Parts: sequence; C-alpha cells; structure tokens
Amino acid sequence: MTAPDSSTSTDPIRVAVLGAGGKMGRYAVQAVAEAPDLELVAELGSADPLQRMLDAGASHVLDLTVPQVSPENVAFAVENGLHAVVGTSGWSDERRARLRDRLADHPEVGVLIAPNFSVGSVLASAFAAQAAKHFPSVEIIEMHHPDKVDAPSGTAVRTAGLIADARSGAGVGPSPDATTHDPDGARGALVDGVRVHAVRLRGLEAHQEVLLGGPGEQLVLRHDAFDRKAYMPGVLLGLRTVASRPGLAYGLDAYLDLG
Amino acid sequence: MTAPDSSTSTDPIRVAVLGAGGKMGRYAVQAVAEAPDLELVAELGSADPLQRMLDAGASHVLDLTVPQVSPENVAFAVENGLHAVVGTSGWSDERRARLRDRLADHPEVGVLIAPNFSVGSVLASAFAAQAAKHFPSVEIIEMHHPDKVDAPSGTAVRTAGLIADARSGAGVGPSPDATTHDPDGARGALVDGVRVHAVRLRGLEAHQEVLLGGPGEQLVLRHDAFDRKAYMPGVLLGLRTVASRPGLAYGLDAYLDLG
Amino acid sequence: MTAPDSSTSTDPIRVAVLGAGGKMGRYAVQAVAEAPDLELVAELGSADPLQRMLDAGASHVLDLTVPQVSPENVAFAVENGLHAVVGTSGWSDERRARLRDRLADHPEVGVLIAPNFSVGSVLASAFAAQAAKHFPSVEIIEMHHPDKVDAPSGTAVRTAGLIADARSGAGVGPSPDATTHDPDGARGALVDGVRVHAVRLRGLEAHQEVLLGGPGEQLVLRHDAFDRKAYMPGVLLGLRTVASRPGLAYGLDAYLDLG
Amino acid sequence: MTAPDSSTSTDPIRVAVLGAGGKMGRYAVQAVAEAPDLELVAELGSADPLQRMLDAGASHVLDLTVPQVSPENVAFAVENGLHAVVGTSGWSDERRARLRDRLADHPEVGVLIAPNFSVGSVLASAFAAQAAKHFPSVEIIEMHHPDKVDAPSGTAVRTAGLIADARSGAGVGPSPDATTHDPDGARGALVDGVRVHAVRLRGLEAHQEVLLGGPGEQLVLRHDAFDRKAYMPGVLLGLRTVASRPGLAYGLDAYLDLG
Repeated sequence: MTAPDSSTSTDPIRVAVLGAGGKMGRYAVQAVAEAPDLELVAELGSADPLQRMLDAGASHVLDLTVPQVSPENVAFAVENGLHAVVGTSGWSDERRARLRDRLADHPEVGVLIAPNFSVGSVLASAFAAQAAKHFPSVEIIEMHHPDKVDAPSGTAVRTAGLIADARSGAGVGPSPDATTHDPDGARGALVDGVRVHAVRLRGLEAHQEVLLGGPGEQLVLRHDAFDRKAYMPGVLLGLRTVASRPGLAYGLDAYLDLG
Repeated sequence: MTAPDSSTSTDPIRVAVLGAGGKMGRYAVQAVAEAPDLELVAELGSADPLQRMLDAGASHVLDLTVPQVSPENVAFAVENGLHAVVGTSGWSDERRARLRDRLADHPEVGVLIAPNFSVGSVLASAFAAQAAKHFPSVEIIEMHHPDKVDAPSGTAVRTAGLIADARSGAGVGPSPDATTHDPDGARGALVDGVRVHAVRLRGLEAHQEVLLGGPGEQLVLRHDAFDRKAYMPGVLLGLRTVASRPGLAYGLDAYLDLG
Repeated sequence: MTAPDSSTSTDPIRVAVLGAGGKMGRYAVQAVAEAPDLELVAELGSADPLQRMLDAGASHVLDLTVPQVSPENVAFAVENGLHAVVGTSGWSDERRARLRDRLADHPEVGVLIAPNFSVGSVLASAFAAQAAKHFPSVEIIEMHHPDKVDAPSGTAVRTAGLIADARSGAGVGPSPDATTHDPDGARGALVDGVRVHAVRLRGLEAHQEVLLGGPGEQLVLRHDAFDRKAYMPGVLLGLRTVASRPGLAYGLDAYLDLG
Repeated sequence: MTAPDSSTSTDPIRVAVLGAGGKMGRYAVQAVAEAPDLELVAELGSADPLQRMLDAGASHVLDLTVPQVSPENVAFAVENGLHAVVGTSGWSDERRARLRDRLADHPEVGVLIAPNFSVGSVLASAFAAQAAKHFPSVEIIEMHHPDKVDAPSGTAVRTAGLIADARSGAGVGPSPDATTHDPDGARGALVDGVRVHAVRLRGLEAHQEVLLGGPGEQLVLRHDAFDRKAYMPGVLLGLRTVASRPGLAYGLDAYLDLG
C-alpha cells in the first residue's frame, strides 16, 4: 500500500514466475497479471529452462519452487541482473551467506527472501516482539486446519524466537508460572522460553494469537489467514520494492518501515 | 433472573452463611445482605457451634467451608430441616450417595451442591456439550492467572467430560488430527479424548474457550470470570430455588432450565 | 452428525436440486453427490420443467432458487409427494400459512424451510436466547465482507428477536446503559431492544458475536462462517431428516434436538 | 521494564503525589510506596498547600488531580525544579503551549503529560496506526461498563485519529463499504473517517479492538484493562524516565521506544 519508489516506477516491472503451477504459483500468476503496474512475462514450471525468462525480457523473478532448486534459480537471476523475490523455504544461514557473496559482485541487484508473505502475520510478529519487553507474561496460541502434520507452526516458532530475543535484550525474565501439577502436558510446548499451544480444528486455515499480560491488563495480537490470497499483497509489495533495495533482505519486515 | 417459585416467596429465606470469613464467604455475606428478598441471620466461622444457626432461626444454610467439615455441616442442616446450598469442593460420589440416603428421611428438604456457581460458566459448558455433537472438531483453551498450581483447570476437565459423553452418545468420533511431529508437546493434554490447552497469564482471572469446527465454520463459546462477584448470581439463584426442589441436585445446571 | 431415523435409512434419498447453477446450488450439488447415503438424480436450472424431477425418480427436492418461484416449486413437490428442503428466502408468514394448508392434504410429506443452513449459526442463536435470560446485559456484533449492502444482517435481526422474546418471557428488563452523550451514533442500532453493531471488513465472510455480561463475568458466543461450505452439513442434515418429520418445519433448529 | 537511565538511578526519586485521595491517587500511592527504587515523600489532597512537597524534599511530582488545578500544580513544580508526571485530563493545545514556554526557562526539568497510562493501550494504538497503512479495511470496537456516559471513548477517538493520520500520510483511501441500507445506524459512528462501535456491557471495564482486514486475512489488536492496576506500570515508567527527558513529552508513547 506504500507507494513504490520513483526508481521502481520508471523501470517497468516485468515478472517471470518460477513454480507457476504450484498452489502459491497459481495465485501469484493471477495477482501479477491483475496488478496494473506489473507485467507477467513468463510462467515457468520445473521442466522449463531458466533461459526462458531472459528470452521473455524479465526484469524480476518470483521464485515459488522447492528448496532443492531455489538457490540455483536465484543464482541464475542474480548473475543475469534480475531482481528476485523468493517465497521458497529452506534458505539456511549458510545458503544466505553464499548468496550474499554472490550479490557482492552484482551491487545493483536486489533479492528478498520471505519466509512469510502475509503482511498481517509479519506485522503481528514484529508487534509481539516490541510489546513483549513491557509485559511480565507472554504466550502464543497457533491454530490451524487438522491436516497439518507438524506442531507448533514455523511462524509460531519464529515469533517465539523474536519475543525471546526482545525480552532478553530488555532484561525481562521468564513469564511467571506457579504450575506444579500438569500430568498431561496442558501447558504446551516451551519454545525459547515461551509457552506455545497448537490447536487443530476443521474449518480453520492459519491463525495465531499472542497473549501479553500484566497486572490488570492484557494485550492480544491476533492474525487470521483465511486464504492463500492473504499472501499476495506481500508478494506484490516485494516485487514493487526489491529493485530499490540492492543486496539481500531476509523477511518482509525489511520492507514494512517498522522503524 | 428467573422469578422465584411462589412456594419460595411465601416462606421467608433466612440464610446462615458457614465459612463466612473466607474469600467466597465475605462476598456471599455481602450479596445475601444486599438481596431484598433474602435475610442474613447468621455468619459462622470454623470456631462457631452449628447450633447458632438454629438459634438465629435460619431456614437456609450456605456452606462455603472446607471438604473436611462440609458433610457434617450439611448433615446437621438436613437433620434440622434446613435447606442447604453448598459451594465446598470434595463431594465425591460416595459422599453424595450417603447424603441422598439421609435426604430420603427428610423428603421436604432440598440440597444443591454446585462445583461452579458461575451461571455463565455452567451455561458455556452445557452449550459446549450440546454443540459438540454437531462438529467434527472440538478443543478447549482455559486461561488463568499465573499463581494457579494445577493444569488443566477443574472446569476444563469437567467440560471435556461433558463433551466426551455427548459425542459418544451421538456416535461422533475423535476430532481429526494429522499431527505426526510434535516434539515439545504443543498439542496440549488429552482429557477424555478432547485436547485441552492451559494458558497462565498475569492480568487474567479464570477464562475458558471451547472451539468447535466443521467445514467452513467455527463456533466459539467463551466465558470470562473477571472477579468472584461472578459467582454471586448463582449463589442467590441457588438460595431462592433450593426450597422448591426437594432432594439432592448436583450442579447449578439443574436450576437453569436447560431443557 | 446425528444418525438418521430408521424410516429415513430404509427409503433411499434421491435428491433433485433446483437452482443447481447458482452459488449455493453448485456447492450443494457437490455435497449431495459426495454423500454416501444420498443420490443426486437431477440438477435443474430456471429453464428446466419441474416434471424432470419426477422423471428422474426424485424422492426429495432441494430448493435453492429465488423468492419469485420457490413457492411454486415447493407446491409442485408437495402435490407429487416429494419431501422438500428449502433454502430460498422470502417465505413470509402468509406464504408459510398457505403451504401449511397444502400440507394438510399430504400428511406424509415433510418440508423444511431454513433461513440459515449453518448448524453453528443456528446453535449460536439458540444458545444466545437461552443465556440472555440469565444476564443483565446483551449486545450483538455482526461482521461481514464490505460488499454487503444492508446492515444489520438478517441473522443478527433474527438473533435479536429471539433474545428479546426470551428476555420478555423471563421478565428481564433492558440492558443497563448510562449513555447520555453519543453524537455520532457509536452505540449502533437498537433492534427489538437489543444493541446491534455491524462491522464491514475486507477478508471476512459472515461472523457474529453475542456478548452477554453480568457482574464480574462475560459469556461470548461467536460464530464464523468462512465459506459457503459451512452450509452443507445443515443441508445434508435437512435432507436426511425431512422424511421423518411430516408437516412444515421452519428453521433448522427444529432438527437439532435443542430441548 | 526497561532499565532506568544511569542519571535516573543516581538521583533518588522522591515522589509527591497530588490528588492522593482520588481513585487513581490511592492506587498510585500504593504503587509508589511498593516500588523499591521510588520513595513516597508526600501525599497531598486538594486542601493541602503545594509548599508541602518542597518541605518533604520531593524531586518528582505525580499530578492526579482535576483539570481546574492541574496547570497551576505543574507550573509550581516546574518553577521549583521538580519533574512532573501528569495524568490529569484537560491539557488542551493552548495549555501545553503555555507549559512549553515555561519549560524553556527551566531546561533541566522534564514533564510527561499522559492521557493514558496503560502501556498496553498505548502500544495497541501505536500498532494500529502502523498497521493501518497496510490494510484496505479498518474499524474500531470499544467495550466498556454500562455506567459510562459518553460514547465513543476518548481512547477510541484518539486511536481513530492516529489511524486516519497514518493512512492519509501513506495515501490509503477509505475502508471499502457497499452499505446502502442501514435504517437504524448499525454501522456506528464515523470518526475521522474510521468506523467506531461502542459496546456497553455489565462485567466489562475498558476494552478496545482494532480490526484490520485485507484480502484473505485479518489482524486484530485487542487491549483489555480489567482494573486500574493496569495504569500503574505506566505511572512508574513515567516517574523513572521523566528526569532523563527534559522538556515536555505528550503521551506515554514517547517513553516506549516505538522507533
């Protein structure tokens, strides 16, 4: 919703989507096609040669593939001067370090790797970390559809990590808890010192509540993702901004002016 | 809020409070004193002889004492023809059976034993059981202040039991759950086949959410007890109704016309 | 989720869907086709003669058309001995009276007219009416997508009506409200004496919260319909039950054993 | 929760409370008395001469009086080199301008005027403004006890103003709303272009929800103040920080490092 930089608006944004046939890919193809300031120039599946995006005159790559091929895709983009927005998981510290090295030789190229494209989810996690310095108690409840195989969710783990860092930096101790008797584990998981509860319920998609409490008050930060459409504003924000932010940005937060 | 029976309104309701010095007792003394249709005739502490309530002309006893003495108090009331409303815990199946035997000899006397005097909490549990027959998924989140030593709460355990009975009676299977990886126990406790999560947060008192989900929809039944005042309408409802319900009633539900 | 009556299970349920091309119709066609105990025998659009359902051997009609033709469709079904489940709006008191007259001549035929097929929504409204007798305060917040043209929603108006009837029957007065200064109408609409607030928010579908409050406590009954899928369990429940309930039933409540 | 500046920790914080007999005053007196790093040196009521705080050796003044006398109290504090934390309302732009003039002559003195001392409420409003740039839809629901005479609440009006400023600065247009039929005003008040709904419910104290929505997602920022205790951490934060922030700060936000 933030206006694109002037540099971005003068250069056309010609987007090639990699992984165009996947679930996220199909949504993204539609979102790019419908955006008045973006042009969809290529849709690639796993069998298509990367050269096709160059032939199509792409200026930007949107990588929504799988961890096995994403680093290779991004390397190809960088070497050819294309900006890249990446939604594929599996970008470990080591992979990101190698990508930073490569970007050092292409100082005009921007890359955004975003573990989560939901603007609302990223804001909620950032607010949670900021608020957690000011409340004695904090817990996380994440709620998902019951076909999910792992608990807790990756987003909840990342949120707990951000909260733990913020509290440790501000000298805030652990949340008070007098529990001495919990034979069945009702108190949930302890992730980086933060209690995390995982609900699985038919009808839900992906939801998270961070509860923060102090004497006489509570602050609740809740995010609901009802649909994969929720990720498209973040994808578009990434495509519109990446050219004006050379180098590697990790996390959509970097583009949200969170001060 | 329901009008008292005519039988109740003709006889005066002269209340003796046992355990008047405890936390609940002090609230109850005030609530009885302020109710226009009730008369507070005696306040007894642990050192006072039970005879004092007879001397004061009590028609009703409100027992808010401790499990060790509550059965003896109620037996004394029944033997002397006083109706009793009991908020003390520890009334096991066996104790209730013995009380029923005693009441058989005093067919005009009513006794209510209520594990929970919050009208809202009792309604929420009853609704949860009724709804749980109609949804594939159900989970419970209870939230309390962090000075509580046990998890999950007694109310959550009772709610899970009511839900389990209702679902078993209606032939509803377990909530769907594809979780295969939950190393830290984020999925919480399994109580009678129902997932229960316990949150402990400074600022809260006693809160419970029952989440019910089906394809494309969710029903949430939430109860908040902010203060012990929440128990007083239930106490008064009990005192106003018990004389018109001879025999033993267990649970405030019996007086709520839940159909 | 309740097991069908034995009468229902011996007769096959052969369903004709009227209005099969509409939004609800398409969902219903799929739901009926996928239900193991139902058989989809005909899909009719507005141009198709009603005779087609007889030719296809339908035993049940599901009417999801428009107010202009629904009474005619249902009359045709009744005259031909078919049970009908009706989701079309516009069934005024007068139309229902005329239908009852017609059903008097066909005592074996059952008809269900349901203004709302969401089991969760119907339960939430029924619970709200039951609870509203026990709390001094009650208000309704309904939340919908911002393309809705009317406020408040029909469901909120019906819920307010149920609450008002229940409170009037129990002798409960109006919710306390000391507001003397509300220049911009922040207190919302007054519907049958109950405050109703309408939120319009991109991302939402159809949601309703009933808030009930008393000294020291709150009960919140929240229903979320994320998707039209939410109406299918109610449609199937209607189709499975209608043959065992001759005459006219108005509202899905009648089939939910709400006591 | 943030560590006090070194300047603050070397000088003792000797607090005089003005308006010590009021509701907030009594809570504050207790909170100051219990804080290990603060010393309560004087409690003044409306009849006490201001000179008493000088006699008691106060270094800080906490003003919790009434709009009629607060400016005079703060002027006296500033002239005598005392830092002041002010929770009294009625500090108009004009009064603040006059105070700034006075502070220009006492460059070492700090004053904090806070319309709201709840850290959670201030954070929630700041987060709402930040997030509102990124979502097409935003609405506010405030909920209070039914003895409140005005609607909407001052906090809701301020939050709406912050949201409106943030959206206008980011070029975000009004929330989408297709409502054409709302005969009873269910859509609530329009404050600075933001819909505000006011609920009044027995059992509640002071609560606010900001709902933000975009395609497929929702962000909810909820704050609950259950008790006046909620304001004490903000009061203490103010007293601990004000000496290190010379000049006038308006709003607790200034001390919360909100970037």
